[in-house]
Amino acid sequence: MNKQHNYLIVGLGLLGGKYALELTRAGYTVDAIDQNEQSLAWAMEQGYIRSGKACDFEALVSNADRIIFALYPTTFLAWFGQYGHLCKPGCIFTDVSGVKTGLVEEIQALCPAGVEFIASHPMAGRETSGVQNSVHVNFAPANFIITPTAQNTPQAIGWVRRLAQTLGFHHITTLNCAEHDRMIGYVSQLCHAIAVSLMCANDNTSLSEYTGDSFRDLTRIAKINDKMWAELFLWNKQNLIDEIDQFSIALQQMKQALITDDRTGLEEMFRLSTARRAAFDKKD
Amino acid sequence: MNKQHNYLIVGLGLLGGKYALELTRAGYTVDAIDQNEQSLAWAMEQGYIRSGKACDFEALVSNADRIIFALYPTTFLAWFGQYGHLCKPGCIFTDVSGVKTGLVEEIQALCPAGVEFIASHPMAGRETSGVQNSVHVNFAPANFIITPTAQNTPQAIGWVRRLAQTLGFHHITTLNCAEHDRMIGYVSQLCHAIAVSLMCANDNTSLSEYTGDSFRDLTRIAKINDKMWAELFLWNKQNLIDEIDQFSIALQQMKQALITDDRTGLEEMFRLSTARRAAFDKKD
Repeated sequence: MNKQHNYLIVGLGLLGGKYALELTRAGYTVDAIDQNEQSLAWAMEQGYIRSGKACDFEALVSNADRIIFALYPTTFLAWFGQYGHLCKPGCIFTDVSGVKTGLVEEIQALCPAGVEFIASHPMAGRETSGVQNSVHVNFAPANFIITPTAQNTPQAIGWVRRLAQTLGFHHITTLNCAEHDRMIGYVSQLCHAIAVSLMCANDNTSLSEYTGDSFRDLTRIAKINDKMWAELFLWNKQNLIDEIDQFSIALQQMKQALITDDRTGLEEMFRLSTARRAAFDKKD
Repeated sequence: MNKQHNYLIVGLGLLGGKYALELTRAGYTVDAIDQNEQSLAWAMEQGYIRSGKACDFEALVSNADRIIFALYPTTFLAWFGQYGHLCKPGCIFTDVSGVKTGLVEEIQALCPAGVEFIASHPMAGRETSGVQNSVHVNFAPANFIITPTAQNTPQAIGWVRRLAQTLGFHHITTLNCAEHDRMIGYVSQLCHAIAVSLMCANDNTSLSEYTGDSFRDLTRIAKINDKMWAELFLWNKQNLIDEIDQFSIALQQMKQALITDDRTGLEEMFRLSTARRAAFDKKD
């Protein structure tokens, strides 16, 4: 990574703010674009960014050597359709989107000559939002996933890998877009769908005094940013629907074992889940 | 609680062992009955109990002033049917069972004259088992629930409350058996059913390197004692089936919102779950 490069963050929220903070700490020059003037003023005051603009930002875009788009997918597509032509040849950029299919190739198709989009996903969300909370995001234990396509060059892939290292990620891997979205549909979105459904099933607020760790652990992620997650769910809907179906089959199998007093069947499910869960323990 | 009383633990496993340890620490005399000679020998060596028997234990039963049954419900019923008549008048006993309906009144009906059963449930399970692990059980943050019936006396209810305090529980409440089992069906059993189903849905062991906190939190309790949980699930099957049905309706509602691209419907579910989950936060 070249410290002479101008870095630009588009979307200075929780993740964009954390990228700005870590890049500035590492000695890079960082500007930002955000629609919220207060976020920009706060980030300048804190020294997260050198400058920021909510409008008239064309010069920031055309001067940028490296850009990070920290926007919702729909906004990212719309924004790039309008302003992507301003990027200069040699500009490489990445994103933070939690879904990739239907986004990455579309953005790549919009890139001017000499401009490259290498997609990536920092799996480090939190229940909070806003640049003011970004200092609390912890990248070190999180996964950073690079999702290259046939269009990408080794140079761009190498850059985003070094970016992830600079940001403090310890676990950096590569998947293609389809693999990424299937994995996300299971390990992240299905978990959120379950936690939300558990809270929506009925009003059990009165039970809060009886809940133990299991209930609390299962529903912690039911506190959820409604706009962002509706967007992510719909963007990846086919994978998520498939996962909901597979999960529902397993749950109905358990219900059937209960109805028929099939103790052996229940015990088999418990032994299977115990064995499979053990593979995850090493990282607990 | 009277320190002259002879305490007896029947079933010296994880919970029975912890009861023995805490009662002995508090200055009570504790004997134990267990089918495993090694558990008894270990507990005597560690000073958890004064003496223990795997057979020929009739004198231990008839000398006991206070008994704690730390057995699975089916074993508890069978054991008491065979040996309950040995209890002496004035003997008060409790249990640790995670389900109450179909157990408490049945045991009470078997009690000899002057012998009283006051049921209770220490909500402090762990993924481990065995007396050797009982020192790691932490009662302080857990709920202790007393489930009296019309048969119970204030004296027995007062005793089990003081027992819970002696064991270190900070949060002691009272429910009737039906309320208890409904609550357990939701906050504990449904959570375990979901976690197990999530692991059984397909073999995702290869995804372990991508999982974040949400998946890990959701599936921690999928490591499960197969015999004990099959027993508890079947014992409370109607409540659990009802909860599975309610949860499935909410999950299918979410799936339907995905199919129909109903962003507003998804956002409404997310806002509802966020608001409800907030009521649980105070205790996180």
